[in-house]
Amino acid sequence: MYTSTPNWLMQRAFLTPERIAVYEGSGQKTFAELHTAAVRTAGRLAYLGVQRGDIVAILMKNSTAMVEIIHGLHYIGAVVLLQNIRLTASELNWQIEDSGAKWWIVDEQWRDDANSSSVPVVTATELASLPEQEVPLQQEYDFHEVATIMYTSGTTGKPKGVLQTYGNHWWSAIGSALNLGLLERDCWLAAVPFFHISGLSILMRSVIYGMSVYVMQHFDAKKANEIILGEKATIMSVVSTMLQQMISELGSLTYPHTFRCMLLGGGPAPKPLLEACRDKGIPVYQTYGMTETASQIVTLAPEYSFSKLGSAGKPLFPAQLRVETDGRTARPYEPGEIVVKGPNVAKGYLHRPEATKKALRNGWFYTGDMGYIDEEGFLYVLDRRSDLIISGGENIYPAEIEAILLSHEAVEEAGVTGVEDERWGQVPYAFVKLRNGVSVTPPQLLEFCRERLAKYKVPKRIYIVDELPRNAAKKLLRRQLIHLIPKHEQ
Amino acid sequence: MYTSTPNWLMQRAFLTPERIAVYEGSGQKTFAELHTAAVRTAGRLAYLGVQRGDIVAILMKNSTAMVEIIHGLHYIGAVVLLQNIRLTASELNWQIEDSGAKWWIVDEQWRDDANSSSVPVVTATELASLPEQEVPLQQEYDFHEVATIMYTSGTTGKPKGVLQTYGNHWWSAIGSALNLGLLERDCWLAAVPFFHISGLSILMRSVIYGMSVYVMQHFDAKKANEIILGEKATIMSVVSTMLQQMISELGSLTYPHTFRCMLLGGGPAPKPLLEACRDKGIPVYQTYGMTETASQIVTLAPEYSFSKLGSAGKPLFPAQLRVETDGRTARPYEPGEIVVKGPNVAKGYLHRPEATKKALRNGWFYTGDMGYIDEEGFLYVLDRRSDLIISGGENIYPAEIEAILLSHEAVEEAGVTGVEDERWGQVPYAFVKLRNGVSVTPPQLLEFCRERLAKYKVPKRIYIVDELPRNAAKKLLRRQLIHLIPKHEQ
Repeated sequence: MYTSTPNWLMQRAFLTPERIAVYEGSGQKTFAELHTAAVRTAGRLAYLGVQRGDIVAILMKNSTAMVEIIHGLHYIGAVVLLQNIRLTASELNWQIEDSGAKWWIVDEQWRDDANSSSVPVVTATELASLPEQEVPLQQEYDFHEVATIMYTSGTTGKPKGVLQTYGNHWWSAIGSALNLGLLERDCWLAAVPFFHISGLSILMRSVIYGMSVYVMQHFDAKKANEIILGEKATIMSVVSTMLQQMISELGSLTYPHTFRCMLLGGGPAPKPLLEACRDKGIPVYQTYGMTETASQIVTLAPEYSFSKLGSAGKPLFPAQLRVETDGRTARPYEPGEIVVKGPNVAKGYLHRPEATKKALRNGWFYTGDMGYIDEEGFLYVLDRRSDLIISGGENIYPAEIEAILLSHEAVEEAGVTGVEDERWGQVPYAFVKLRNGVSVTPPQLLEFCRERLAKYKVPKRIYIVDELPRNAAKKLLRRQLIHLIPKHEQ
Repeated sequence: MYTSTPNWLMQRAFLTPERIAVYEGSGQKTFAELHTAAVRTAGRLAYLGVQRGDIVAILMKNSTAMVEIIHGLHYIGAVVLLQNIRLTASELNWQIEDSGAKWWIVDEQWRDDANSSSVPVVTATELASLPEQEVPLQQEYDFHEVATIMYTSGTTGKPKGVLQTYGNHWWSAIGSALNLGLLERDCWLAAVPFFHISGLSILMRSVIYGMSVYVMQHFDAKKANEIILGEKATIMSVVSTMLQQMISELGSLTYPHTFRCMLLGGGPAPKPLLEACRDKGIPVYQTYGMTETASQIVTLAPEYSFSKLGSAGKPLFPAQLRVETDGRTARPYEPGEIVVKGPNVAKGYLHRPEATKKALRNGWFYTGDMGYIDEEGFLYVLDRRSDLIISGGENIYPAEIEAILLSHEAVEEAGVTGVEDERWGQVPYAFVKLRNGVSVTPPQLLEFCRERLAKYKVPKRIYIVDELPRNAAKKLLRRQLIHLIPKHEQ
């Protein structure tokens, strides 16, 4: 049975050497050139001492250099740990410790954050000037092997490293192509970060399809529109906030017909946004996916945007989907936990056999998200897992913020929930009950959070309350927290 | 590790129920309708007694009914043995015996050929009127399982059943899509027979891609042109003879730009044909493949038609290719045996462990074909295996015809080779040395062959000669037979 393929970039450099692999600003690289760069990077990494199987953390903004380092690490057979640049130094260091990463490659600006770490730190610039050492390159990619790790939180609030294999990335790319089609002139605009699966999956598709990627260091609505209007990109991945900004920035202009897919993740799109896109002829494909499914697993074709408003669509061809309640498959419209199966589902969690066993049962992945399926098989997501808050495309886990608040000596109980926000979709609000006889102010608690949490996770507001809503089993009812907001502030 | 997918047609009926799966004449069926038909066919096959794992032979012309029977058999988990309708009754019966097939489904016109068989025969029409019996349907296709069997000859001249798995068909379809791209409006014109891998692979792609197939019962240049001119097909599989006829029939007309791929198998195309196609703007993709690679494994993109004239191209993305000589990889331009590797390479030969072991070594398939690879990696096929003759897209193995001739009491030695033919590309010529004191005429030998061989395999000419060319080891030198043709007939 076949469970490997030729090394993707290497095969592309052989089959379609002259095609453009990466555009960035005014620069570009063909697959042949990108391959040469990856070989040289692999040589420098080898000089550093990186070996097959080593975990190497990357803390970088989107760039061609980052693309080369990812491929260079894969050429050696190293495992790439991709880190969110918005995390605090302590959050980042925790991942380094937890993963057992052996090296830390960072953009210059994060050198100081990384220096407190116990592992060797090298900036991307320093790496580029190292001598090259000969090293055997991976001629084939084994589908069982872990290619990348991304940390994500869960119900416990403790981030876990998701093990994404070469097989996961391969099948994700194939499932996407079977759904969206594949044109030789395709170019995917990558304005979402490569440290998220939404961005990384674009790089994987690029080398598997032989497709160009247009790299944006960070999202800029005006620049993104210019790229699309200049017919330089045919597909783009976005979250609602990004699309909203692009639409308002676009004014009365419309995209050329060569632009064929706006892949929208991070929860269902608001109807006015879908209407604006329809009026402008922008084909919006809403998707549902997560780090553990190596990108989209359920997608809604544009023709169903309105007849199936609020739906995430149907599974990709190689995947399966069901909703489970009380240990049985739910009936149509009956809500329950969303359970998915497919070759794009991650192998498990790094160093977390128990969490892996709990999430992966008989080949099915229990997402923790709630939803229902209609009689035609369209999925509707009701609640993201563990009251997940999605803010500007970033996942925020209430439990993680609650854990920080609870670590403050004055806090006895804490509850966090997402509140609707025009710009970000949702933002976190916190509610705390103080210990008897202790006093602290919301601004002091906010400062406490700011020191320990990435900026986007810091609660927008903190309320001090007498009691948190709990059910009979004393389980926190996060969804009822919103009623504790004083009337005049609602 | 993932080695299965949801049942292809079933998943298509769920994901894209309204898309057209099959066009035939003025009729058509959506994926939902084709699924319903396959379920009903599965019920009738179950009534007949067909069970999971049974081998069931099909002897039919291309038709929607044949498509439904193939899918119906796969729904039950039966293995489909596809038979060439041009074979003689004795050749067909030999396959039935050799394979251990349990049923034989035939078009009405072959009822008599099949009736001499020891296995139950049912015509497609009879099958359609059987009652339906409930039967568990395969919800998933396991990549390890054999989906189809096709007989092909080899160096020995004894046909062998090639075991094509679901995994072979899946990967072949994916490899093709990664090379040719994939459009939602694609429709593949199937004028090549489904009992050949060139035709069957179209059906497999159809249910994997969600793509329409336009079924032609038999090739007709005028009708094929009408379908393409009517923008009803975007891709077509042909061999040179078919393309030649279409081009001359087309006259001064040209195909619409929606027609995006003429996939040309069965050996390199003559330059004048390529020039005619270029002048008409027809994108010709020349390919190299065989029953054992579940369709194309090497393809030449149209832009290289002339700069790499005579080349079969580069491997598909998941596949690898090399030329071996004296047990080592040949240098660029150095000829040797063509050896291929990839997930589309068949599992082996039915009931032929020795032949399987000989052909498949360390994951590499030894094609028996000779060729070389240039410095850029383009493959040039020098000789098809065992002096294979390709006549109008049909494979003819000299050894098979020689064996028939040798079974005639008057024949002591026999040699067969291919001779160039304007219409068919090649046709077989035979040369025989008679036993001392026995006499037979070429017309008598031709008649003898006609009774035992499919029409296309019957030698165009038979010459009686004094001696056959052999090397020191007495091995027949088939390529030198051509010099035995009398000067005035050359």
